[in-house]
Amino acid sequence: MIRFDNRAAFAAALADLPVPDTSAIAAAAERQAALTKPAGSLGRLEEIALFMAGWQGRDRPEAQRLRAAIFAGNHGVAARGVSAFPAEVTVQMVANFRHGGAAINALAAACGAELAVVPLDLERPTDDICTEAAMSETECLAAINAGAAAVEPGLDLLLLGEMGIANSTPAAALCAQSFGGAADHWVGRGTGVDGHGLARKAQAVTLALALHGPHCGDAFETLRRLSGREIAALAGAVLAARMLRVPVMLDGFIGCAAVAPLAKDNPALTGHCLAAHMSAEAGHERLLRALALDPLLRLDMRLGEGSGAAVATQIVRSALAAHANMATFAEAAVAGAL
Amino acid sequence: MIRFDNRAAFAAALADLPVPDTSAIAAAAERQAALTKPAGSLGRLEEIALFMAGWQGRDRPEAQRLRAAIFAGNHGVAARGVSAFPAEVTVQMVANFRHGGAAINALAAACGAELAVVPLDLERPTDDICTEAAMSETECLAAINAGAAAVEPGLDLLLLGEMGIANSTPAAALCAQSFGGAADHWVGRGTGVDGHGLARKAQAVTLALALHGPHCGDAFETLRRLSGREIAALAGAVLAARMLRVPVMLDGFIGCAAVAPLAKDNPALTGHCLAAHMSAEAGHERLLRALALDPLLRLDMRLGEGSGAAVATQIVRSALAAHANMATFAEAAVAGAL
Repeated sequence: MIRFDNRAAFAAALADLPVPDTSAIAAAAERQAALTKPAGSLGRLEEIALFMAGWQGRDRPEAQRLRAAIFAGNHGVAARGVSAFPAEVTVQMVANFRHGGAAINALAAACGAELAVVPLDLERPTDDICTEAAMSETECLAAINAGAAAVEPGLDLLLLGEMGIANSTPAAALCAQSFGGAADHWVGRGTGVDGHGLARKAQAVTLALALHGPHCGDAFETLRRLSGREIAALAGAVLAARMLRVPVMLDGFIGCAAVAPLAKDNPALTGHCLAAHMSAEAGHERLLRALALDPLLRLDMRLGEGSGAAVATQIVRSALAAHANMATFAEAAVAGAL
Repeated sequence: MIRFDNRAAFAAALADLPVPDTSAIAAAAERQAALTKPAGSLGRLEEIALFMAGWQGRDRPEAQRLRAAIFAGNHGVAARGVSAFPAEVTVQMVANFRHGGAAINALAAACGAELAVVPLDLERPTDDICTEAAMSETECLAAINAGAAAVEPGLDLLLLGEMGIANSTPAAALCAQSFGGAADHWVGRGTGVDGHGLARKAQAVTLALALHGPHCGDAFETLRRLSGREIAALAGAVLAARMLRVPVMLDGFIGCAAVAPLAKDNPALTGHCLAAHMSAEAGHERLLRALALDPLLRLDMRLGEGSGAAVATQIVRSALAAHANMATFAEAAVAGAL
């Protein structure tokens, strides 16, 4: 299990990322070339098989041990009217996750993933990023380590999700801080705010950037000042997964925003990540481009909770089933190309 | 079970298509609005749930009885060098389907669909469409009825696929005949022909259109002259499914081309069809537009066999799991939007 002792350990890990197993990738590619289909005809399914082979370190990667880790947190900035839902919905939805009634329960079950729900001090919202840093150093490190603790060695794939009323506002701030651009480029309607709510989001992001921007010297400090507990936990989980060579399925705008500060410090960070989908949230397309991630799905989803990650994991399961179970041209006595 | 006694019966069925159950759609929409998520936040998953509700005629549609029907046929036009693979691969791949070694075996199993493999007179290729009609009236009707026979009442979803070396050439001819445009707009690299093969395909389509175009008075005649047995079977299966209100998952370029002549005669024909994916085949995007179908996936697949349909069925399963199993706001005691 990974645990970061301090911010320096987090920065050191981010600066020294493991790479995939190139011999497993080569062996998987050799197998793909021998399977009974025209070369390349399964498109991205073939790429997924090679990606999974590289991180799992075997030529026939598996999709047996799947975990969806969903982190929840509350945000001081919620008091500024930046969400269509009241802040108490965070704790209510965590109860819903635990009773099995949320979308992620149904979708995780459909793709065969176990669900780990990790609420983070819901009774203690982070400070309002417009006037303070979201978290102290201790709080931020604790959130990052809560994320890291959700990753076990030997997972075949880690699906990440989040729940936190108002969290698309800090997510937009992380994007703007990491990749530049005005607040307008990064805020969207989240769970469904109206035009006034959208204007309040843009204003909150602008205020937060003006206050914290000059002090965001690295990924840890950016997370501490501008994010929230569930977002820092996502970042911790992604980095810990990389250290354990566990491939990651990122979900939507919030999940991708959580890795933005890490990718700014080390663009290789997303090398073990798949982007599940392009969500309907306005800034997500730009964010995926900045992270150099090509989403598997475009289904106009915008729920969070890891819902898109769970749907996209179905594609991974199909890709690995084809890779593992198809016959070769020789086994099936099928003629090759002319 | 549906059986068309003659071409007139086929035309009559195509002219008088059943519509979905609007009260089931309304009930499913009411349920969607009550589930614990922001309205519309599951995007196309919600649309799929309503679509399936309408055709299955119940507010909680199911994905239990799934059948993938794969039709195979051989083509006289193969002798013109329009494919990257030799014609004997059709019969070899049918054996591969039966022994469980093809992509569709792995992908159908992954999505929980049973597989029905239907070879159609493989030892007797259709006539070369550049010089003759592909089939006699009797042969075409038999192929259509072989397709219809693969559809049972009460299937939750019918996945369609095909195998037939050289069949992207007749498929391109069907598209050009149904929707206009030069041969160049509709031919693509199929399983991987080179530039010379592509030029031979375009020439074959041009010859076939010049010979048969003036005589293609309706869908049946277009299928008879320009298609092939597995393509006519796909068309028969799609129409029979509509008559039985069984929703259909179309696969790639060939599967969509099979319904092109039917959609030309009655554009409402695709109302019970989902398009699984946009394939890498050049003409598929144009064809999907002409059919008014928005593909669920874009994964650069181009294999056929129903492979894309099986992957997209995973999305349907996820959509229906969320629709059926999520709690409502009232059940979960979660607050609604502000």
